[in-house]
Order: sequence, then structure tokens, then C-alpha cells
Amino acid sequence: MYRSHTCGALSINNLNQKVTLSGWIQKIRDKGFVSWIDLRDRYGVTQLVFDTERTPESLLKTVQNLGREYVIQISGTVIERESKNPNIPTGEIEVLVANLTVLNTAKTPPFTIEDKTDGGEDLRMKYRYLDIRRNPVKQNLIFRSQVAIAVRNYLSGQGFIEVETPYLIKSTPEGARDFVVPSRMNEGQFYALPQSPQTFKQLLMVAGMDKYFQIVRCFRDEDLRADRQPEFTQIDCEMAFVTQEDILETFEGLTKHILHHTKGITVEKFPRITYADAIKKYGNDKPDIRFGMAFGELNALAQGKGFQVFDNQELIVGIAAPGLADYTRKEIDALIDWVKRPQVGAGGLVWVRYNHDGTFKSSVDKFFNEETLLAWAQALQAQPGDLLLVMAGSADKTRSQLSALRMELANRLGLRKADTFAPLWVTDFPLLEWDEESKRYHAMHHPFTSPKPDDMHLLDTDPGKVRANAYDLVLNGNEIGGGSIRIHDKKTQQKMFSLLGFSDAQAKAQFGFLMDAFEYGAPPHGGIAFGFDRLVAILGGQETIRDFIAFPKNNAGRDVMIDAPSTIAQEQLEELHINLTKSED
Amino acid sequence: MYRSHTCGALSINNLNQKVTLSGWIQKIRDKGFVSWIDLRDRYGVTQLVFDTERTPESLLKTVQNLGREYVIQISGTVIERESKNPNIPTGEIEVLVANLTVLNTAKTPPFTIEDKTDGGEDLRMKYRYLDIRRNPVKQNLIFRSQVAIAVRNYLSGQGFIEVETPYLIKSTPEGARDFVVPSRMNEGQFYALPQSPQTFKQLLMVAGMDKYFQIVRCFRDEDLRADRQPEFTQIDCEMAFVTQEDILETFEGLTKHILHHTKGITVEKFPRITYADAIKKYGNDKPDIRFGMAFGELNALAQGKGFQVFDNQELIVGIAAPGLADYTRKEIDALIDWVKRPQVGAGGLVWVRYNHDGTFKSSVDKFFNEETLLAWAQALQAQPGDLLLVMAGSADKTRSQLSALRMELANRLGLRKADTFAPLWVTDFPLLEWDEESKRYHAMHHPFTSPKPDDMHLLDTDPGKVRANAYDLVLNGNEIGGGSIRIHDKKTQQKMFSLLGFSDAQAKAQFGFLMDAFEYGAPPHGGIAFGFDRLVAILGGQETIRDFIAFPKNNAGRDVMIDAPSTIAQEQLEELHINLTKSED
Repeated sequence: MYRSHTCGALSINNLNQKVTLSGWIQKIRDKGFVSWIDLRDRYGVTQLVFDTERTPESLLKTVQNLGREYVIQISGTVIERESKNPNIPTGEIEVLVANLTVLNTAKTPPFTIEDKTDGGEDLRMKYRYLDIRRNPVKQNLIFRSQVAIAVRNYLSGQGFIEVETPYLIKSTPEGARDFVVPSRMNEGQFYALPQSPQTFKQLLMVAGMDKYFQIVRCFRDEDLRADRQPEFTQIDCEMAFVTQEDILETFEGLTKHILHHTKGITVEKFPRITYADAIKKYGNDKPDIRFGMAFGELNALAQGKGFQVFDNQELIVGIAAPGLADYTRKEIDALIDWVKRPQVGAGGLVWVRYNHDGTFKSSVDKFFNEETLLAWAQALQAQPGDLLLVMAGSADKTRSQLSALRMELANRLGLRKADTFAPLWVTDFPLLEWDEESKRYHAMHHPFTSPKPDDMHLLDTDPGKVRANAYDLVLNGNEIGGGSIRIHDKKTQQKMFSLLGFSDAQAKAQFGFLMDAFEYGAPPHGGIAFGFDRLVAILGGQETIRDFIAFPKNNAGRDVMIDAPSTIAQEQLEELHINLTKSED
Repeated sequence: MYRSHTCGALSINNLNQKVTLSGWIQKIRDKGFVSWIDLRDRYGVTQLVFDTERTPESLLKTVQNLGREYVIQISGTVIERESKNPNIPTGEIEVLVANLTVLNTAKTPPFTIEDKTDGGEDLRMKYRYLDIRRNPVKQNLIFRSQVAIAVRNYLSGQGFIEVETPYLIKSTPEGARDFVVPSRMNEGQFYALPQSPQTFKQLLMVAGMDKYFQIVRCFRDEDLRADRQPEFTQIDCEMAFVTQEDILETFEGLTKHILHHTKGITVEKFPRITYADAIKKYGNDKPDIRFGMAFGELNALAQGKGFQVFDNQELIVGIAAPGLADYTRKEIDALIDWVKRPQVGAGGLVWVRYNHDGTFKSSVDKFFNEETLLAWAQALQAQPGDLLLVMAGSADKTRSQLSALRMELANRLGLRKADTFAPLWVTDFPLLEWDEESKRYHAMHHPFTSPKPDDMHLLDTDPGKVRANAYDLVLNGNEIGGGSIRIHDKKTQQKMFSLLGFSDAQAKAQFGFLMDAFEYGAPPHGGIAFGFDRLVAILGGQETIRDFIAFPKNNAGRDVMIDAPSTIAQEQLEELHINLTKSED
């Protein structure tokens, strides 16, 4: 038996007990006649004490030779501390050590194992097994497992069955790039790793499984942006015999349960907004609604007044930044520079100070009188003391630029509070989006999403206008889930594939099994999938998913700890019937 | 809303209620003036009734055009059945239908959707989405998810953290063949899919995570035997600061919990046997102990009596088949033929009838008197009425042949009861096994298994004799779990790699990160992994794992439903910097 208690367990209630502890040496303080060791394990830290009066000399000598991160086992007696530490649960006691065994030595770690470490990202990743010893990372992983348990218990309680779908599946050209796996037994053929279990969950609905979920790994071979991983985890769900309303209700319930059980937070009914309104109001299909600053459109109030910058633009749109009327010219100029950066790309910014006394001062005083500016302020729901910021240009671009400004201001104003949770359903997404490069429509969600029955007639005449029975769940400005009612008849599915530029032969080769399945009694069905990594990160009050993944990969898709990917033996290549091509550069 | 109730919910308590149901047509019976439809969903079957008296004519016409497996939605009134069916929960009622909507039509399924189907294995796999509609398959999948929930809740309750480890890792030559994944972003390099998360769980122990588990997919590119899958699921567990005893206790607790919560069965303390004793007593390291027939060794009693077949053999060993003294000569001859089959490969079988009156009749009466045969019977713990069966030859081969006979007899005697559960710990496995082909030692479990401290001195002199701190959990003659205490210091691990024929450079290239980690304070640790597919199958009273996997692959590693693996586009190959080699045949 290596321990009678963990290092987080002992308190004043254990006084005078003989205990055995095991753990890592966090810190050694040697005052000559007395030494203390902070002993750490997953559960906490317990202070060990050694002194010239009560500790055998041989043991004192052993202590001399210990170092940080040594693994030791001790036994001793729980005694009361002289100087107590009210900040930790074990802060009232210490253990007077009688025996000590070194279970393992340790080299000096390449960075400090403390909450605030001196280790940079690269070093932390290379020695991830040391990084996880640090409380913030350890707690993130524990929190992740708690969220998973909450999800599983809720969904199981609602009659959902977790079904494991295969990881070795078939490559499909739609969507992102697949990772593929050469088959040794089937020469010249490849499996693909799933980008999601989409078709399998739909087949499970055809199979009558009715309520399915799975917390499942998915794979996308994409050029990695800052916070993407080639493998990521999804809470994947599907239901049969449901309408969109049933699905929103069910997964609103799940999200409330998670918030309640892992954060102790109760959220009322989630607001809903259509995609079109979200774009109009926030310039964004995943608006952060922890704060206001909704857009106001000013075309009617701002055009035809002689200010040529506005007159010929498609859209004039503004927001009221709360309390920023006191911004100096310098601060405002800095804001203007910020929107002109290539990352935002705006041409400029018209500003109007709505002073505390109700007067106005703006960059366009020459063109607009106080009365007009007051009308602007009203359109933007501004209060005295706010700073109105107005942009103009083509609608899509301007909205997206103003959205970036809105988020920036919220950051500056501290309005994006990590402990506030504001979920929002965004509904009625377009079915298709036009891709200029390939000159064809792409599925906005995926090719299995059902058009809205009301818009079905537009499929032939104006496909870009067709709305889908598709919805996203947005939390604090992040899309944490998305789904749709699916197509469940072969004819509509064929139509959809043809709109997406599949030939009949391609559709049959790739998705024949699904369309076949639709002919054997497919029920109406729909579902949703949550990005589990992001969900956990946001619930944890952070936005970087890497900190919530035990062994993440870097932006080149490498695991720098194990040094993967790596070369493989020629023998392996031969067995797989492949060889490497020569690089052309 | 597609339904107010499921098809398994209604009973006499719902009489006269207006209800809405959705589901599949299981069966239509048309008696002219009255028709019945059995409507099926995941939850059960409800009988619908239509008759010329109460049903509108247009609806009767619709019913005429329905077929099996059509998906329909109906609303109607719950009424009492005239002829009740006590075998199903809804058997006292039927629904008099007022409205019916066809949600989807169905082609005639290629096999009947019934508990006993007329579909063969191949057809069932091709149309797995129809196969899963059948109760036995559906119930297996639901049972599987219940076992997973029981596992997770138990382990979480014990303080285990579920940590997701990566699927895109690094190829290692030890063990079975890896599936590999070419990296597009790292030219000429490959990820491997994990055969198990072994090194990651050990790193998590180094990381201080202490109690880890994961229900996780694993991958092995093996030539598939009848009941192996290229991807399979493991309950993977690891603990730090534990002895072998702590691990056996913890996972005995888990197994008891599963048996109790999914089968309602309470099992007392699990018996334990060493590997050496299991081989001696059952000729097998995973003995089925639902029944007796333990081996008795007869060398002392059977040699030197002039029976030359025995005299020069390494081992003479027998079992007592309960109650088979009445076997006819013909039946015994058939048994002898059975052991001579190449699959068993025995040279023959000596038999002794221990008659009900206490007398003996044997195939070797010429050489052994009644007194000797009685001594044999006592050595085999036989009762009057038993049939003694004795084999002789080299120890390993003979034990394995007798083990096959023991299992065969148990099958014939109905002693392998699917609803009896007899777990057994097998401990003290050898650390290494000699491989004649490669002329080197292989790790019996894996290269991270710790030698028993008592046997450490044999590592240099007689490595084959070294026992490991390794254990298997056997259930009903199947290994359902196996694990070990791990090596946790770099020196022993290096030694082990060298015994396994790794050069220092190879060991460093493959497992350098693990040996590095061992230098930064690795705690003593150990763990276990359960084969989840097999565990669920055995708990379900079956031995074929394929019936407990939603979308299994066939023996050629193919998913015949989605037709994977398949060829991929030349473009994909180019992006991955590989091309196909020409077949040489």
C-alpha cells in the first residue's frame, strides 16, 4: 500500500494519526534546524516537516539529497502547524515524517511545475507529461471528463443510446480533406477516417435506433489555423420522428443540464434569431449576446445630405459604444487605425460623440445637424455618454467589419465576461452557398440537410435563396453546435447531390448505400453535433481548445512530444502496396 | 409532433385516449372486413385496427396500398382488444385508427425483419441498417451502451478521470501491425492508429493523473481470424501508487458492478490462480471454471507398468468426464476420432469407465489392475459413473490437447451455461516468451510490463523463467481483461528493450519520449485493459463479438455496407506524396 491518504485529504480532524503519503516534491525549504517539503499529488499539497529535534539524523541526511519532482513515499504523524495557511484545505496541519522512501528520482524539469510557469508553449508541449502536473492543465482535463459524464448521463436519461460507429470508413470528396489509411488486405484501396459519423448516424435512424448519441473523435486534414486540431471530439446526436422544434428543445435541455451540473449556472429559455436577422443585427452568424451594441442601419437618415462618402453606398450601419463619448481624439484615431488594418479592411469610421449633456460632436458635423445625429443615436439605441461609430460600404463586407469592431470594443470594455454564459439559437441558415472559385454551390452545413418545405419551389429557380432546416447553437460568440433536419427521401437527396455538382455516378459511388437505405423506409430525422473541445474550453472560461486536450498537436499537425508523424519502414510501405513520391522542389 | 407515445408505451391504462404513433409496418393482416397492422418502433409493437364499420372508406383504401416496412404516422383511439396477447406489454389494447400519413414508402426488404430472420450473414451485413431493426441486434446495441454507462459511472465514482488520448500517433514495430496514415503536411511521414493508448496512459501517470480510464477504439492490422475486427474497443485503465493487489481489488469491483447493474448477478470474491497452475490444472491460461474436470497428472501411477505408450512420455494427464461411464464404445471411438482431428492433433486417448458399481472397464485393462485404476480415479477426483480420459505426450502439447477435449465435453454436457458467470484472475504470467521463428524473446504482455522483483536476478541468466507482475481477468473461458504493473525506471526499461532485441538507437527512436519521461519522476504504476466488444458479448450470453458491433467489418476487413476500403482519387495520392506500387502477381 503506497498511501493511506492523498495529499489533499488531511485536516485538523486527522490530528495525531499515523499516515502514509506518496507524491511529488513541489518545494523544499531548508532553515537549517528545520526543513519543510511540500508534497503534491493530483488531490493537493501536504506540508511535511523534519527538524533536528524530532527527526532521526539519517532521515535528515536523506532529505538533504532530495530534489524537486522526486517521487517519495513517507509515513509519519499528523500534527498542527504553527503558522497556518488558510488558502489550502490541508493548511492547518503538517506531517512529522518518521520514514521516507525515494520511489523515483527526477532531473530538474525544463520549466517550473507551478500555476504560472516559466515554460513557453513549445517546451510545455514537448514535455506535456510535466505540463499536466500543473494545476491549470490538470483541472482542465478533469473538468473535461466531468462535462462528458454530465452529457452522457443526461442523454442516457432521455433514452439516447450511445452507439460506436466505425473509424475506418470510406473517403468522400465532399467537405474537408480526409485522412486516409492504406489497406494492406485490399490492395490499392484506402479507408478514410471520419470527418464525422454523419452517414452512420443517419443509417442508425433508418435502422430504427431513434435516439442516438456518441462522444466521438473526428478527423479533418486541413491546413491548421491557430486553434484547430486535425483530430477533435464531437458530441454527435441524431433523432428520428422529430421536428426542428423537438431537437431544439432536447438540446437546449442538454445545454442547460451541462451549465447547471458543471458550472452551477441556471439559464432561462434560450433566445432564437434567424440567420438573416443575426447578420443584419450583428454582422455575424454567431453573435456574442453577452452584451448589446446591436447594429442600426442609417441609410434613410444618412444619405442625401451631401456627404458623398455615404451617398452611393449600399449600407450605412452603426453601433453605439457604451460610455465611450469621453474617448479622446487620439483614442478615436487609434480606433480608426484599428479598423483600417488589413485584418479588418475598412476604409474608415465616422464617429459621433453623444455627450453626457445630450449634445453631439462628430467627424461629420459639416453634413449632419444635431437633429439628424439625434435620430442616428435613437436608431442605434444610444444613451448620452455613448460613442456612435458608423461604417459604410457594400452590405456584406461592412457588416463583417462592423462586427469585428463590435467584438474589439467589447473586449476593451470588458463585456465578454468569462463567467457569463449567453446561449443563442441561430436558425434558418441558407441551404447553399455559392463558391466563386469552383463556380458551384456548396452545402452550407452538409449535403444531407433538408431544405425548408416552404422554399422547396426555389430549388430549381433560385437555389441560393433556399433556406434550410438548419440551426446552430451559439455560446458567447462561438458556434458550439450545429445541425439540421435531414433529407430522408432518395429523390430530394439526388436533387441535392446534383445541385452540388455530383454526377449520378459519383453520387452513387460515394453515397449509394445511403440512398439505397432511403428506399427501405427511412423515417423523418434530424440531429446536431457539438464541438466538444470548444464547448469545454468555453465552459472553462477560455477560448483556446489546446489547453483542454491532453495531448494536442501543433499547427503543423505534429505531436512534438512523441515526434509524430514519422517515417516508417520500407517493409511497411511494401506491405501496403504504396511508395513515396519524390518531392518536386 | 410525430408521436404522443412510442409503440411500446400503451396499455389498458390508456383506454379511450387519443394518441399519435409513428413507426414501421411490421405486418399487415387483412381479413376483408377488418385489417390489423403491427406498428413497430424501437420500443415495441402496437396493433392498429381498421374495419369497414368504424374506419372511413378512403382510409381503408390507403391501407390497401401499404406494405411491410413503410413508415407511417397514425392517430386514433386506444381500445381494448378482443383477443389479447399476454406476451407483449401492449397486448391488451389496439388503436382504432382515424388518420394515417405515409411518411415514407419501402421496397421489400431483402430479408425478413424478424427475430429469426431468413437473411444470411452476408446479406445482413450489406443491409446492416435493416438488420439493426431486428430485436436481437437492436437489443445487443442497447445492452452495449448500458454496459458502457455502468463502467463509466463506476469508475468516475471511484475517482477515475476519463482522458481522451490521440488517435494519430506514431508507428512502432513491436506488437501487431499498425494501420498508418500518410501526412500531407509532413511529406514522407506517417501517423499510426493506436493499437492501444499504452504509452499515453503511462505518460498520464507520470503527469500525476493518478487514476485514468478511457473507453477507446484501438486498431490492429492483423490477418483476421473468425472473430477479430481491425478496429475494436477497449476499456483502458491505469493507476499510480498502486500494487498489483490494489489493481485486482479495483477492477474486481468494476466487474462485480457491471455484473450486478447489467445482469442483476452478484458474484462473490473472484478466485485466483497462477499462470503455472492454470496450465497444470486446465492446460490453458484462460480456463473456463463454470465446471470442473480439472486435470490430474498420472505419471507416478501409470508409468513403469509395462504400457509402453506411457512409459517414455513426459506427461500422462487425464480428466474425469462426469456421468459419461455409460458412453458406448461407438461414442468413445467418436471421441477418440475427435481428438485425432488435425485441429486437436492428439495421437489417441486412453479411456477408463468408472462404473456405477465401482468397477472399472478400460482400454488398458491388460496393463493396469483395478487397484491402479482406482488410484487414477482418485487422482482425477472421479465419481462412480464418470468416464476417465487420459492422454500422454510432451507436456505443453498434451495439456493443450486435453484442454480442447475438456471444452468439447463441457459443450456436449451443457456445462457452459450462458447465464452463469465465473470470473477468475490468472496471475504471475511469464515476462517473456521465446519465438522460434525470430529466435528472440517477445514480451508476453508488452514491453512495459514489470518483472517480479523476486525474479529480477534471472533477467540476465534465465530470462524465460522470469515471472511478470501481470494478470488476466478470465470470464467463462475468455480473457476479458489483462494488465500489469509497469516498469517505471529508465534502467529497467532499457534492459527490457535490449532483451527484446531493440538496439539502443531503435529504443530511443521509438520510445525515447517514454524513457525521457521516466527521468522526471515517474511514480510506480500499473493498469489493465478490457476487451469491451468481447466483454459485452459474453455478458450478453454470446461469444460472437460481431453481433455486438453496430457496423462490423468482415474477415477481409471490408465494410460491405458502405463498400470500404475503396480507391481514392489520384489527386489525393499526390497531395499525400505517395503512389501505388504495381502488384507483382
